[in-house]
Amino acid sequence: MKPYIEMTAEELSEELKKLKAEYSKVQAKGMRLDMSRGKPCKEQLDLSMGMMDVLDSNSDLTCEDGTDCRNYGQLTGIVEARELIGDMMENNPKDIIIYGNSSLNVMFDTISRAYTHGIMGNTPWCKLDKVKFLCPVPGYDRHFAITQYFGIEMIPVPMTPTGPDMDIVENLVSSDADIKGIWCVPKYSNPQGISYNDATVRRFARLKPAAPDFRIFWDNAYGIHHLYDDHQDYLIEILAECKRAGNPDLVYKFSSTSKITFPGSGIAAVATSPNNMEDFLSHLRHQTIGHDKVNQLRHVRFFGDIHGMVEHMRKHAEIIRPKFEIVVSTLQKDLGELGIGTWTNPLGGYFVMFDSLPGCAKDIVSRCKKAGVVMTPAGATWPYGKDPNDSNIRIAPTFPSPEELQSAMDVFTLCVRIASAKKLLAEKQA
Amino acid sequence: MKPYIEMTAEELSEELKKLKAEYSKVQAKGMRLDMSRGKPCKEQLDLSMGMMDVLDSNSDLTCEDGTDCRNYGQLTGIVEARELIGDMMENNPKDIIIYGNSSLNVMFDTISRAYTHGIMGNTPWCKLDKVKFLCPVPGYDRHFAITQYFGIEMIPVPMTPTGPDMDIVENLVSSDADIKGIWCVPKYSNPQGISYNDATVRRFARLKPAAPDFRIFWDNAYGIHHLYDDHQDYLIEILAECKRAGNPDLVYKFSSTSKITFPGSGIAAVATSPNNMEDFLSHLRHQTIGHDKVNQLRHVRFFGDIHGMVEHMRKHAEIIRPKFEIVVSTLQKDLGELGIGTWTNPLGGYFVMFDSLPGCAKDIVSRCKKAGVVMTPAGATWPYGKDPNDSNIRIAPTFPSPEELQSAMDVFTLCVRIASAKKLLAEKQA
Repeated sequence: MKPYIEMTAEELSEELKKLKAEYSKVQAKGMRLDMSRGKPCKEQLDLSMGMMDVLDSNSDLTCEDGTDCRNYGQLTGIVEARELIGDMMENNPKDIIIYGNSSLNVMFDTISRAYTHGIMGNTPWCKLDKVKFLCPVPGYDRHFAITQYFGIEMIPVPMTPTGPDMDIVENLVSSDADIKGIWCVPKYSNPQGISYNDATVRRFARLKPAAPDFRIFWDNAYGIHHLYDDHQDYLIEILAECKRAGNPDLVYKFSSTSKITFPGSGIAAVATSPNNMEDFLSHLRHQTIGHDKVNQLRHVRFFGDIHGMVEHMRKHAEIIRPKFEIVVSTLQKDLGELGIGTWTNPLGGYFVMFDSLPGCAKDIVSRCKKAGVVMTPAGATWPYGKDPNDSNIRIAPTFPSPEELQSAMDVFTLCVRIASAKKLLAEKQA
Repeated sequence: MKPYIEMTAEELSEELKKLKAEYSKVQAKGMRLDMSRGKPCKEQLDLSMGMMDVLDSNSDLTCEDGTDCRNYGQLTGIVEARELIGDMMENNPKDIIIYGNSSLNVMFDTISRAYTHGIMGNTPWCKLDKVKFLCPVPGYDRHFAITQYFGIEMIPVPMTPTGPDMDIVENLVSSDADIKGIWCVPKYSNPQGISYNDATVRRFARLKPAAPDFRIFWDNAYGIHHLYDDHQDYLIEILAECKRAGNPDLVYKFSSTSKITFPGSGIAAVATSPNNMEDFLSHLRHQTIGHDKVNQLRHVRFFGDIHGMVEHMRKHAEIIRPKFEIVVSTLQKDLGELGIGTWTNPLGGYFVMFDSLPGCAKDIVSRCKKAGVVMTPAGATWPYGKDPNDSNIRIAPTFPSPEELQSAMDVFTLCVRIASAKKLLAEKQA
């Protein structure tokens, strides 16, 4: 089939007629499929059921250092959890604070604390006229929702295949003291599934911010979430790199086991410099007496060590790899020759990113919905939900079964073709 | 023995000599005992070990409504947990939000949210010149720490045996729009162990605050924490009373299972009006995707229903009742005739309150410490850690063993006698 752009108005019109007939048949099926959120599927959750067995009423819930996990205390988390998560995050256990069940919540708290009390003695953001954040785009909607919630002005920075455009980042961060932070998902990024290359990470570590309270919000949500054994992205460890660059306090690094064990019942963590950690703890001690240590111990006893965790992630990969392959192969098969979209082909993480012709994303997502397939809303990957090109769509393949996913992707590519043909035809007729 | 106040200088001097000789012997023992915090003891924690058995790898972790507890979602908590905690809090499940592991954290968040965004559309507290809170005294140090952290001016209100002095509360709340809240531990209060009587609760529900965003922070931490089967305090349910009084949005009610199952691994909750709940959720949805539902389910499966929970609390009472009796009987035996202190005799909760002669509390706590017995710091029960009478001391009997507790109380009453005799002697000699 020839690219849509090369088609005449008549050919496009003919094509559209065929596609619409097909769409009517699809609609008649009354499907109900959800590809909107990065949720693990049932089979993935089943992988962690063994975690329900590692503690029972005969277990000794005492930590290595004698702490009774069942009682109050241990604000930074139990030693053995800091070791396990330290290995997972590639950081020293002493640089780790273990939190509750959600790294998103920790990020929210971190912004909230900067807003109410300021970072390391700097002016609280609520006392400033203007606070800005850099938002690599497309990016993660829940990040943007937090900064929007606090009235922080979001400045989009384009993503490239190697990470955010660092020329722009460096320029803005070094020249504007209102810029207090940047959201990053550095590995298997949301929604692209790409990873920052070495040069990008090195340039991040060497930023010279105009604001003394500028911090990189490094949300390494998918650090060990590889799809392949033999073909993996590698990310330079940012804390060590910042230290080497003489910028030890530049970064807050977040992670969790949400997509390793159970979302909502995992453990979250921050890794950061001793100065930042002191700052975190001076606030945290007013906030809580401690997080759930029994659940920390449960994770430690389940995995044993990082090797257990890596093995576990292989099993996740076996389940979701075929799903990613369905997405990419369907896009290739249905759209490969048509010149009406581009997409990523990630080696890990939870998402595939699709870019349509400009002005088609909302139409595509709306058509999908009317055929029973729920996608992440178009625009969600941009601050304020506004994609200026109306082209970006996040595809989340993990939750549906392979069969459902195939059906959903068939609908998706059909809707892409309809929206694109319609747009091109309108242009020709204009 | 005659009251110290009736002793001559010579008699006091003689008494002091004897007491100091006794104190030297005690110091030589090198004790290390802690009565500083309201922590359950090991035997209490053992009561909940069965909770580690109710879920295993063969369990179905699906809720009544079909929610898979292992995945994301359910911002308000799972239905069956809202029912169980609803029964515990005497509220309708639909008025309950289940949170994470700490009600203190929820209270912190609630203040923080009022500070950053305001309550129900009112001006955020960070934009106001002055925000004030009423603090019934003596009260809970961690409450005071939160308001102090946010720079909120704390106004002490005296506690009476039936609750805060409501004449003062009504006057202040209705006349000063800077007053935005009041901290209450209405049942088996911290540190008195007393409960607000019917008149007090009714007057709370009928407050006419000058500030539209005034809220009662009703921390019902010890709602079912009775020491006796046949002799219990009763507290009017505040939400229903507020509704009856035409003030449905006046109160935020907090509770948790921290001192029912495991502190740090329990579940916390808020009960409040539909309007307040809508306000809570409109913020909470930016903060987290949901709390730990597996732990919610674990609690539900362990207790079955409220009857299971009540039975469980009876077992707690059997363990800690003798400890409370040791505290009170030792105070009575050693100090009953001396006129140098008063104390409470609670029917539940976690604390006994002791009031020394004015100006003696710091001295008593310091002498205890030098003899190896750690008490809650004198002053901790007052805002800013400053007890104007220097007389109030919180005694936390639950954590030590009965034998340890007896030794600690022997030291405590000895130190009370020394500090009191010294003070009275100094007065006579002045």
